[in-house]
Amino acid sequence: MKKLLIATSALVALTGAASAEVALTGDGRMGLVWDGENAQFSSRVRAKFNLSGETDSGLSFGGSFRVDQENYSAAPESRSAAHGTAGSVYVSGTFGKLSMGDVVSAAEAAIGDLTELGYTSGEFASNPEEIDFLTGDGENEEQGPTALYEYTFNGVNLFASMTDGSRRDCSASNVIVGDLECFDFDEDDSTDVAFSLAAGYEFGAYNVALAYSENGDGREIVLGGTAAINEFKIKAFYADYKDRDIAQLGDFEYNFDDDETTFEVDYDRAYGLSVEYAMANGVGIQGLWIRREVEILEGFADLAEDTYDAYGIGASYDLGAGATLAGAIIKNEVFEDNETRADVGIKFQF
Amino acid sequence: MKKLLIATSALVALTGAASAEVALTGDGRMGLVWDGENAQFSSRVRAKFNLSGETDSGLSFGGSFRVDQENYSAAPESRSAAHGTAGSVYVSGTFGKLSMGDVVSAAEAAIGDLTELGYTSGEFASNPEEIDFLTGDGENEEQGPTALYEYTFNGVNLFASMTDGSRRDCSASNVIVGDLECFDFDEDDSTDVAFSLAAGYEFGAYNVALAYSENGDGREIVLGGTAAINEFKIKAFYADYKDRDIAQLGDFEYNFDDDETTFEVDYDRAYGLSVEYAMANGVGIQGLWIRREVEILEGFADLAEDTYDAYGIGASYDLGAGATLAGAIIKNEVFEDNETRADVGIKFQF
Amino acid sequence: MKKLLIATSALVALTGAASAEVALTGDGRMGLVWDGENAQFSSRVRAKFNLSGETDSGLSFGGSFRVDQENYSAAPESRSAAHGTAGSVYVSGTFGKLSMGDVVSAAEAAIGDLTELGYTSGEFASNPEEIDFLTGDGENEEQGPTALYEYTFNGVNLFASMTDGSRRDCSASNVIVGDLECFDFDEDDSTDVAFSLAAGYEFGAYNVALAYSENGDGREIVLGGTAAINEFKIKAFYADYKDRDIAQLGDFEYNFDDDETTFEVDYDRAYGLSVEYAMANGVGIQGLWIRREVEILEGFADLAEDTYDAYGIGASYDLGAGATLAGAIIKNEVFEDNETRADVGIKFQF
Repeated sequence: MKKLLIATSALVALTGAASAEVALTGDGRMGLVWDGENAQFSSRVRAKFNLSGETDSGLSFGGSFRVDQENYSAAPESRSAAHGTAGSVYVSGTFGKLSMGDVVSAAEAAIGDLTELGYTSGEFASNPEEIDFLTGDGENEEQGPTALYEYTFNGVNLFASMTDGSRRDCSASNVIVGDLECFDFDEDDSTDVAFSLAAGYEFGAYNVALAYSENGDGREIVLGGTAAINEFKIKAFYADYKDRDIAQLGDFEYNFDDDETTFEVDYDRAYGLSVEYAMANGVGIQGLWIRREVEILEGFADLAEDTYDAYGIGASYDLGAGATLAGAIIKNEVFEDNETRADVGIKFQF
Repeated sequence: MKKLLIATSALVALTGAASAEVALTGDGRMGLVWDGENAQFSSRVRAKFNLSGETDSGLSFGGSFRVDQENYSAAPESRSAAHGTAGSVYVSGTFGKLSMGDVVSAAEAAIGDLTELGYTSGEFASNPEEIDFLTGDGENEEQGPTALYEYTFNGVNLFASMTDGSRRDCSASNVIVGDLECFDFDEDDSTDVAFSLAAGYEFGAYNVALAYSENGDGREIVLGGTAAINEFKIKAFYADYKDRDIAQLGDFEYNFDDDETTFEVDYDRAYGLSVEYAMANGVGIQGLWIRREVEILEGFADLAEDTYDAYGIGASYDLGAGATLAGAIIKNEVFEDNETRADVGIKFQF
Repeated sequence: MKKLLIATSALVALTGAASAEVALTGDGRMGLVWDGENAQFSSRVRAKFNLSGETDSGLSFGGSFRVDQENYSAAPESRSAAHGTAGSVYVSGTFGKLSMGDVVSAAEAAIGDLTELGYTSGEFASNPEEIDFLTGDGENEEQGPTALYEYTFNGVNLFASMTDGSRRDCSASNVIVGDLECFDFDEDDSTDVAFSLAAGYEFGAYNVALAYSENGDGREIVLGGTAAINEFKIKAFYADYKDRDIAQLGDFEYNFDDDETTFEVDYDRAYGLSVEYAMANGVGIQGLWIRREVEILEGFADLAEDTYDAYGIGASYDLGAGATLAGAIIKNEVFEDNETRADVGIKFQF
């Protein structure tokens, strides 16, 4: 019996070493979104490829991307896992983990976002839980793949990420003519490398992290912390930006008196807090508040608000096996009509 | 031994309850299409994601979509499983089954289409087997996800479907700026909710169903029935439309004397019949006939035909394991040159 | 025990006959590309669907395509596995193998390309290893699916491929209106069928092949050979073209004195050689040289070069389980600045 077990283990080890594999996961959701005036159906279904393997010497490698992150043939200049601007690949070992592709920045890897509310995970209210990190996270896609390095020892987590300052010019016309121009970077030489550095420390149920990033003229310092106290999980962050203009602001748009024209704006700082409360019976309650402070660089700046708050509350019920009932109410002041929005539905993990 | 079996069963049950999964299926086909003047190669290969799970309390949930139904990044305003306008998700239990996404209407769920001919399943002749249902089936995509509810008891099948009257404005420009506008539905308020109600009854080898639908000004009543008599399967339908204009007609185009200009037309009614004959040796023969009656709302309407027939015959041979040889000849009067078309090839299910 | 084995085998056979399946594979890579002036990150991750089955009578059938080859909804007129212009399907038996879709031409099936260099497989230097076959390989996509037939006996390999001279007009506008026009080929009648014929002979570690192809006015004769001698694998080819214009040249562009205007050019011939050296310890070294000769059909033709060389050297190290370290240096004279390029990174097979 013992011999058989050993033989089997050896076989498993052999198989493990000799092959790498592709596994599938997925998610879905369905429900209703209230936009302040109407209720709307909102649903989706997605699938994700998870590739993994291990070399003879014990290095782990792999990658992952979702089906909806791949569309190269149709739009060569947009994001594509097959071209490094969606999904990612990695190799990891005792030296740490090196990832490349559409990875998060070191700042986001160390600090993360606030908690997501509702069955659409905050999407119905323009994702107020997302911290506006200066690099990665959709900010410098035009520079192609981002590289992220992670290393952990004795509860200390170190992170470094960078993009290379330019992107292969693999636009549609070049792809039709051939790959010839794709690696001709001459025109991009004026762009600076963007990077992010971060360090975190875990002690028991507490976690703090600090990050510094540069992207063009913009600078970012973010401080974040997490505490898990009994059924509560609390997260807070403070982000200070310098010379960050609206173009770098991402999912954010300014509307003054129904006038959607964008002004020259300095994004000064943001800070916020989220709390999760999880009961043993599967019921959870979540809340978040986030504030963004901007400085309007126009003569009539006194007319405009310079603080945008978003806050909301959500509830969830774990049905088991990856199914969760969830709903939330969020007020996000970036909305033109300043309306309160809500969602309720069911979400699935496969 | 008995104990071991019980333990194993328990383990399986536990695993089943604790996990949801993603399975892959696919299809392919290859062959020749005759368009009345030329023979052309026509082939395809597709894959489908099938997601499924079961909650702790016994609710089933899942979803599915094909790879070619997902292309969000490239065309945010077109159909996308990741955004609810292709593929679908569902949850089902003793209360029935609720689906959302690109689901069929209640009318189509109850009645279905006529039988498909040839290895391209009627596609080579503009799918004459498809009944022009007023809702779902590509008719009101601009309203976003459709919800479909199904309930069955004692051979009675009840169906209800609806769309919410508007769609998230997640066009390309809004996605680039952010998700902000995606749930701002103000401009869509004038659109009416579209819905469909249907009931069917199964008794032995017979099935009848009746459906009523509304979409904008259009109204639809469809009656359908199926009978399985020995080796024969017969299907017939009658559809009556009111205030249905050509824009709602879908895969249909009017050509008068080589003039492709579209006229204002009322789609009055359609009816048809299909017969399948399946021999024990794997050989099958299929036939269909469908008639569409329209009323030309123009002064010179006497010049134009007001009835469009399509009819065809097909043969198939089951090679086993999902492979089928099939061919068909179809005359579809909607074609400009009024030509007869044919296909022959092999199709696969994986 | 014997009985049990027989029963198990029968079960396996039964299962095999009754079902077809979809398997997933994938690949990834990450590293640096040097374009002559800058180093750039370059990474990608891809997944591939592999469909296979076997009919009751023992015919094999299947197909395959990558996720990034499917994008029909977003770009109906571009390449799509679901519409026969990417990926492929096949059926094979004692009669040989018949494939359809985006298959290679008979010439390429018989001869193949030279060896790939670097972790991006030559892509960083415009794929100099690729022989410019006259048909298939992206050359006559506008004709829709290609059919390829392969037959082998006694070391002789026969190949025949063709496209049908036209493509279904399934452009975006037609797809919106319906599938009606998709099979209306009238406008394409003037296009000629493109085809390729090839034969190869294998004797021990040697392989020679000869191919003839026609595409429009163009003609192609290609002779290729492979020899495996101890740790060396040598490949050479000679291709002679007639009436082949630049439009048929594919991944190739002429730049004279920084002037990118394209001239009327006759592509006369190409020839090249690659050598692979594989050591037992997993280290490999590769080299290639390819020459393309063109004739400038302009009055000032004396000013322009009529020979374009590309040559390079690469090294690789097999890490096991599908992971390989690789790098290469390539000079490809088609580049405008005539720069030398290099790549180094890691690539994965899953």
